[in-house]
Amino acid sequence: MNDLKFIYSGSFDPVTIGHADIINRASALCGTLVVAVLCNSLKQPMFSVEDRIKMLNEVCEELKNVEIMSYDGLYADLIKDTKASVIVRGVRNLDDFEYGMQSCAYFNDRIPGCETILMPSRPEYLYISSTLVREHLKLGGTAEDLVPEKIRNIVENSNSEMRGK
Amino acid sequence: MNDLKFIYSGSFDPVTIGHADIINRASALCGTLVVAVLCNSLKQPMFSVEDRIKMLNEVCEELKNVEIMSYDGLYADLIKDTKASVIVRGVRNLDDFEYGMQSCAYFNDRIPGCETILMPSRPEYLYISSTLVREHLKLGGTAEDLVPEKIRNIVENSNSEMRGK
Amino acid sequence: MNDLKFIYSGSFDPVTIGHADIINRASALCGTLVVAVLCNSLKQPMFSVEDRIKMLNEVCEELKNVEIMSYDGLYADLIKDTKASVIVRGVRNLDDFEYGMQSCAYFNDRIPGCETILMPSRPEYLYISSTLVREHLKLGGTAEDLVPEKIRNIVENSNSEMRGK
Amino acid sequence: MNDLKFIYSGSFDPVTIGHADIINRASALCGTLVVAVLCNSLKQPMFSVEDRIKMLNEVCEELKNVEIMSYDGLYADLIKDTKASVIVRGVRNLDDFEYGMQSCAYFNDRIPGCETILMPSRPEYLYISSTLVREHLKLGGTAEDLVPEKIRNIVENSNSEMRGK
Amino acid sequence: MNDLKFIYSGSFDPVTIGHADIINRASALCGTLVVAVLCNSLKQPMFSVEDRIKMLNEVCEELKNVEIMSYDGLYADLIKDTKASVIVRGVRNLDDFEYGMQSCAYFNDRIPGCETILMPSRPEYLYISSTLVREHLKLGGTAEDLVPEKIRNIVENSNSEMRGK
Amino acid sequence: MNDLKFIYSGSFDPVTIGHADIINRASALCGTLVVAVLCNSLKQPMFSVEDRIKMLNEVCEELKNVEIMSYDGLYADLIKDTKASVIVRGVRNLDDFEYGMQSCAYFNDRIPGCETILMPSRPEYLYISSTLVREHLKLGGTAEDLVPEKIRNIVENSNSEMRGK
Repeated sequence: MNDLKFIYSGSFDPVTIGHADIINRASALCGTLVVAVLCNSLKQPMFSVEDRIKMLNEVCEELKNVEIMSYDGLYADLIKDTKASVIVRGVRNLDDFEYGMQSCAYFNDRIPGCETILMPSRPEYLYISSTLVREHLKLGGTAEDLVPEKIRNIVENSNSEMRGK
Repeated sequence: MNDLKFIYSGSFDPVTIGHADIINRASALCGTLVVAVLCNSLKQPMFSVEDRIKMLNEVCEELKNVEIMSYDGLYADLIKDTKASVIVRGVRNLDDFEYGMQSCAYFNDRIPGCETILMPSRPEYLYISSTLVREHLKLGGTAEDLVPEKIRNIVENSNSEMRGK
Repeated sequence: MNDLKFIYSGSFDPVTIGHADIINRASALCGTLVVAVLCNSLKQPMFSVEDRIKMLNEVCEELKNVEIMSYDGLYADLIKDTKASVIVRGVRNLDDFEYGMQSCAYFNDRIPGCETILMPSRPEYLYISSTLVREHLKLGGTAEDLVPEKIRNIVENSNSEMRGK
Repeated sequence: MNDLKFIYSGSFDPVTIGHADIINRASALCGTLVVAVLCNSLKQPMFSVEDRIKMLNEVCEELKNVEIMSYDGLYADLIKDTKASVIVRGVRNLDDFEYGMQSCAYFNDRIPGCETILMPSRPEYLYISSTLVREHLKLGGTAEDLVPEKIRNIVENSNSEMRGK
Repeated sequence: MNDLKFIYSGSFDPVTIGHADIINRASALCGTLVVAVLCNSLKQPMFSVEDRIKMLNEVCEELKNVEIMSYDGLYADLIKDTKASVIVRGVRNLDDFEYGMQSCAYFNDRIPGCETILMPSRPEYLYISSTLVREHLKLGGTAEDLVPEKIRNIVENSNSEMRGK
Repeated sequence: MNDLKFIYSGSFDPVTIGHADIINRASALCGTLVVAVLCNSLKQPMFSVEDRIKMLNEVCEELKNVEIMSYDGLYADLIKDTKASVIVRGVRNLDDFEYGMQSCAYFNDRIPGCETILMPSRPEYLYISSTLVREHLKLGGTAEDLVPEKIRNIVENSNSEMRGK
């Protein structure tokens, strides 16, 4: 039993096996894990919010304490709205690390009682990012070994549709 | 209510305000926080194990879910013995980050179900380490603003005794 | 009395409290500090050059040895034109550091007698950048604690106008 | 005599003295060095593929074991198609290093017998990148000391033409 | 057929699975790979030079183009004496990377025609070092999964003897 | 005319060409540059304080605004005693950078009006450190190209004497 609410957010454009691993591991440390899809990203996403939520639903199917949502607006507002007390960030490299340090300093200052924890990527997922998957798909590659097997179809089909247009 | 057992270990030679901050923040995320003092360090410590445990007892006096202990031997054995499922590491800089990534890879591989989380140091404690405190004391400085106020006496007196010898 | 001329340049889109801190500290080390607003940035700025200069004028109001200007063209030409002998760069993170090292190597080679100094950001401003402020504003946040209080109105109003268009 | 085939790829937009140095040094370690120009880059290049190949032809004129080609599609496919067994990457900074580590992990996993080696940039070229050259040209600077002397005309003329349009 | 001579040196105190992997991969890129054991290390080694060479002999048993030797004195002299033209360095982390960059700059300057290449560690060996193995052994752990299986006996027995003394 | 007092301190064990370069460049930015030799280093130095001061005297012979001194005790006390207002630190790599950031945070907090500036090493001196020189000498190498030519005799002779003992 554990009443802590964690929050893990990102563009998930698309969800990778690295994201899925962090979600799995983080959900084991809290009462509720909110997974929030960032919609108001200034860059044009490859996958629609609906597709990204569908991917997360598949990936989190067996995790009973995960809540999936989308949001636009300020991240600080989202944290307050969801009443999450712990921000989870996956870290693979120096950029993730510096960003995590900054995020912690920023939100700890502004949201009383808000904590940030960094979860190291497993070595075998260190090189996987949504950017890599998108580039791979655009160049004609498959999503094999890059996204969870159960969402591979969604990822490859959404992409084909877009390429077909 | 939260039944996760976290473990946070170190030499604590001496306990700094940075350590105290991580202990405070980590204890809020778990059912039990084991704080373990590394004794078999190959380097000669400045403070005895007894003094270091005394410091931790002072610092954790009001944290009801913290258990303080010392250990020698393999860290992996300690984790198994205490049945801790989450290793907590404070991170201030690149070395801490790389070490944390390695620690995670190493123990996740060897201890099934063991997780590692990194907690970013607050900006104002980024530059504080036990090494800095020891050098400061050896050069005749005080421990003010470097260790928690309530253990400043222990730190400065233990040190005076040693210098007096 | 000090006859060294320093130069500090950037997009200042907008001026942050981090920029203001570096300007304050750098101006204390030289006879004249040239603060130069980069106009020919290839990316579309959020604030007009006029607004950015207005912000700097406000921020530097009490610093008698600061000269504010805008420029387009090569930075090396600007350095020669202003006869500045020292390039000042604020450093917050690894990217700033690497860029500072490269800048130093590049300009020391090409401009005889030109020096580069890096000024570390204060810990409390480490996570503040113009990019963060812009994103914050675009998502509906205020500029509080991100830009100097005295230019908060300029920043928030310029932004509202743009958003109103 | 050496029957290893190395591959070195990039956008080469334009070829810099740093690229030329890596090509020179890498060609001395193998039987054949394939230099491949990435065409399907998602960003709009400054120089046409034809110009970039012309630059490489000039630069490699006296290196008898260098083969120059362009490609679009997946890098993994290119490696398989060329039967190259060693990927060469120049490294100047932390980003290059992290990217090289990831590239090695990624391709070693996916292409049996494929190896990745990193070649450190010479200190004097650490700060030179195609991005820097492009910015320099756009701001009215010359390519002197940034690209190999023998292709300076191609670089500056192609650029003038574009600017003239 | 390949007439390049590579050199890979270290303390090998003891040889780890990470070292064995680099030796394997480097030997595939050259005519001869010299593996040199550093004897004049200023720190007291855990294993004798004889034991370290015995470990390397076991590990390289099936690699026909590897020559194992020990040396004391300047590394630059060793490179000249062996007529090696390529220095191989394994890289796992930022320290290795910076050291590799420096080594390259240093020896390229001083030894005409000398080249340095960095070989990224595989992800699964990123956290393994001789230091880790030594600490593990001193605390009563085994060498399993840390050194190549075929030298595990040498490593554990040499260590027991020392501990028995 | 410039009335700022800068301070640059270190072990200078021995003075390298990198140190000499920083001293030269820093002395051009201030009214007085205090160069302070750290004596109370906990590690045993290779060169006596007298020799290190002799080296600095030679190196700074033509710099009229440099004051050379030795000190033991707390660095903060030295800064207050000398009334220096700017701490100068040479930076070559990530460790230097992180240490410089920490130094700045630490002393700016504790000494009102104290500033820290980082001066990037020139590319050609990036790999030179006192540690490298000492190791080089211990292994029988000369100090050529590692220390300023005019102190090469002091460095090599002091060392010979020691080795002769």
